[in-house]
Amino acid sequence: MSTEPRQLHLNAFLMTPGHHDAAWRHPDSQPHRATDVTYFQQLAQTAERGKLDSIFFADGLAVWGRLRSNVSGGLEPLTLLAAIAAVTSRVGLIATASTTFNEPFHLARKFASLDHISNGRAGWNIVTSGSVTEANNFNLEEHLDHAVRYQRATEFLEVATGLWDSWADDAVLLDKESGVYADPDRVREIQHAGPFFQVRGPLNVQRSPQGWPLLVQAGSSEDGREFAARHAEAVFTAQQTLEDAVAFAKDVRARAAAHGRDGLPLILPGICPIIGATEAEARALEDELTELQVIDYGLAQLSNMLNVDLSGYPLDQPPPEHLLPTEQEVNGNKSRFTLVSDLARREGLTIRQIIARLGGGRGHRVVAGAPEQIADAIESWFRAGAADGFNIMPPILPTGLDAFVDHVVPELQRRGLFRTEYTGTTLRDHYGLPRPDARSTESESLLASSSL
Amino acid sequence: MSTEPRQLHLNAFLMTPGHHDAAWRHPDSQPHRATDVTYFQQLAQTAERGKLDSIFFADGLAVWGRLRSNVSGGLEPLTLLAAIAAVTSRVGLIATASTTFNEPFHLARKFASLDHISNGRAGWNIVTSGSVTEANNFNLEEHLDHAVRYQRATEFLEVATGLWDSWADDAVLLDKESGVYADPDRVREIQHAGPFFQVRGPLNVQRSPQGWPLLVQAGSSEDGREFAARHAEAVFTAQQTLEDAVAFAKDVRARAAAHGRDGLPLILPGICPIIGATEAEARALEDELTELQVIDYGLAQLSNMLNVDLSGYPLDQPPPEHLLPTEQEVNGNKSRFTLVSDLARREGLTIRQIIARLGGGRGHRVVAGAPEQIADAIESWFRAGAADGFNIMPPILPTGLDAFVDHVVPELQRRGLFRTEYTGTTLRDHYGLPRPDARSTESESLLASSSL
Repeated sequence: MSTEPRQLHLNAFLMTPGHHDAAWRHPDSQPHRATDVTYFQQLAQTAERGKLDSIFFADGLAVWGRLRSNVSGGLEPLTLLAAIAAVTSRVGLIATASTTFNEPFHLARKFASLDHISNGRAGWNIVTSGSVTEANNFNLEEHLDHAVRYQRATEFLEVATGLWDSWADDAVLLDKESGVYADPDRVREIQHAGPFFQVRGPLNVQRSPQGWPLLVQAGSSEDGREFAARHAEAVFTAQQTLEDAVAFAKDVRARAAAHGRDGLPLILPGICPIIGATEAEARALEDELTELQVIDYGLAQLSNMLNVDLSGYPLDQPPPEHLLPTEQEVNGNKSRFTLVSDLARREGLTIRQIIARLGGGRGHRVVAGAPEQIADAIESWFRAGAADGFNIMPPILPTGLDAFVDHVVPELQRRGLFRTEYTGTTLRDHYGLPRPDARSTESESLLASSSL
Repeated sequence: MSTEPRQLHLNAFLMTPGHHDAAWRHPDSQPHRATDVTYFQQLAQTAERGKLDSIFFADGLAVWGRLRSNVSGGLEPLTLLAAIAAVTSRVGLIATASTTFNEPFHLARKFASLDHISNGRAGWNIVTSGSVTEANNFNLEEHLDHAVRYQRATEFLEVATGLWDSWADDAVLLDKESGVYADPDRVREIQHAGPFFQVRGPLNVQRSPQGWPLLVQAGSSEDGREFAARHAEAVFTAQQTLEDAVAFAKDVRARAAAHGRDGLPLILPGICPIIGATEAEARALEDELTELQVIDYGLAQLSNMLNVDLSGYPLDQPPPEHLLPTEQEVNGNKSRFTLVSDLARREGLTIRQIIARLGGGRGHRVVAGAPEQIADAIESWFRAGAADGFNIMPPILPTGLDAFVDHVVPELQRRGLFRTEYTGTTLRDHYGLPRPDARSTESESLLASSSL
């Protein structure tokens, strides 16, 4: 009776106009604030008002070709989150950053700095990047092969965690009397020499409140799942059905257990909640957004997901079978490809229907309904073992986040599934994850399964 | 009679305990706040209270070996400045970043983001980095040759400015009705292909309030002066005597004029003002700080500047002539080397005396006195053509900045030399510099003299 029920974790996935691809055309959205820091600060404060675990920004290192029909050209996530840290005090701050186009010293340093600035609220969504457009901005004509990117990511993480552990917690002595600031024996070089990186260290930032930022990952391919199982503490994933979501969670957990990481990583499927006072109101909003979709944009996005050009094919027929490549042929975002080809093959949807279906959450689960129905959709997956929490992707911002915080969160709190106050101060506290000890047995073991 | 007198520009150079190398041992300093964002936010607010043009952070990409005897392991400047931007509204925000160990796409993006976040207050102090310790953190056993670093810096700047200009000011149309967000014809690829970088572009950040961050530079070697003359809008420099300072300013201005850049760059020598209510009080503070110096630290720093190991030589004799290499032999910070060897050769100072002399400003001018005397020191150089303003380097923080803002600034204002209110909102406004037009004749001409 007195046992605390298992608690949900909720992350707010923020992007300028909201997650529906037509959001920017809806009167409730604020696409003119794409580069306005106060817009994002206000969204973060809303998430904090709702006691959410964290906010999160996706990222890419190029303008995607279709800037004609959607918001682009916003702010770099780490820089933005530092400005958000200054006006919030509890909500976690998760930035996406690429291991393919960064150097580990820079990134380790920036996350350590953000962790200090936010008093322990930094998280890193580790991505390997998947597009030739990004490679073209970094001296490459082709992007690295999928498997090579994950090898690089693994070594990158080994270097970064080594750097975060290079200052002991008690390295700074600050003895004004004797003139000793730090103990050189408690600050160590990492002397890393691997196939991708040679980094001497130590980091030039003192050990941060969390030790390491929370490590998040979102790849769902074979390589991605293995990486998550070995290294991630939380996983963002796109799942359309409860069955698939449960299977994914079981698979990743079993892989992690095989590496001695029981209970990790936390699984956070995306959900795009279209909220109305009634279900009818929510459906009307969903239809209104579908009406506002720019078909050329949806077609281009779908073509991008499938790695084929769909323009010229009849919109009201399914995409021809021969256009759907096998997963082996895709050197990009494998998990998103699988979702799309399932919609075509399993449900037999037409191109137009697929575009409408993907409009809300780009492959993530979309649920339209009254607040209780959204809470039901969350609770059912949570109780069925499909999720430890959710990546909340409001279709329109800021209104969709306001609705979630003001109406869905209280319902989840009434059901005893979600905190009514923060009980800790760091992002790791919110997710119930331990602080890694510098060079302790525990932190070593987190990397012990590295393939390098 | 009605002509506005020429106005000084003042930049506050911030570092944790203050600029005197013994500052951290003085009771007024706060070395325990090296990673405390509120410490730096408060310093920035003090600078803003004093109507200063800007604040500035130096940077390096490694822990220098002597962490035993001085503060190290602080925060990364760009991340820190974003958090400072959130709690200030006028003061400019200048971050140091290296062209040798960064990719132009990342850095262009971060400065554009900071410029948006600060509503047009970003500045970039362009450095080429000079130590093998830094190279060792970026996959290199040796650092790049001095001349190669400047070639890379020149191409880096060409790419970065191209990226900042890749979105026209009017690229975003935001037509909700017709479904057109941006005009693809007003966002262009830069298609850069050079010896160091291949970058397609466009940048994934919309054009920022200032267009480009203010471009600052601090190298005083032959290569450094040429780079400043061609590209910098402001120059930080270390000068010990009025004669040297005037010569330096004339030289850089003449070089710039030869490239068609009349009146640029602004010259901002460093000054470490040791302020007391009376001159005697200031001298007492200076002596107190010299007393607190850790001689091993000073010796290591001096050895580093000269690129020779001075340990084992008698402290009360000048460094032996044969230990002073020629400038050609130094592949590091050439300007600082020249200053030190002048102290030895020109003034015949002993090793101990040089360490004491360098303790206050690491080669920058140190002036101890009452507020009026500090103002005299500033005014005399300003009127003699040695400076357009100064890089203020308080010996101890926060007290040294408080003293400057509360006592020296009002004196400069009484003399009609410094603003009493901000008249513009951007960093370029404060320095009286124009906003570059995207791809206009003017912005082209700023790069026209590039050697690439």
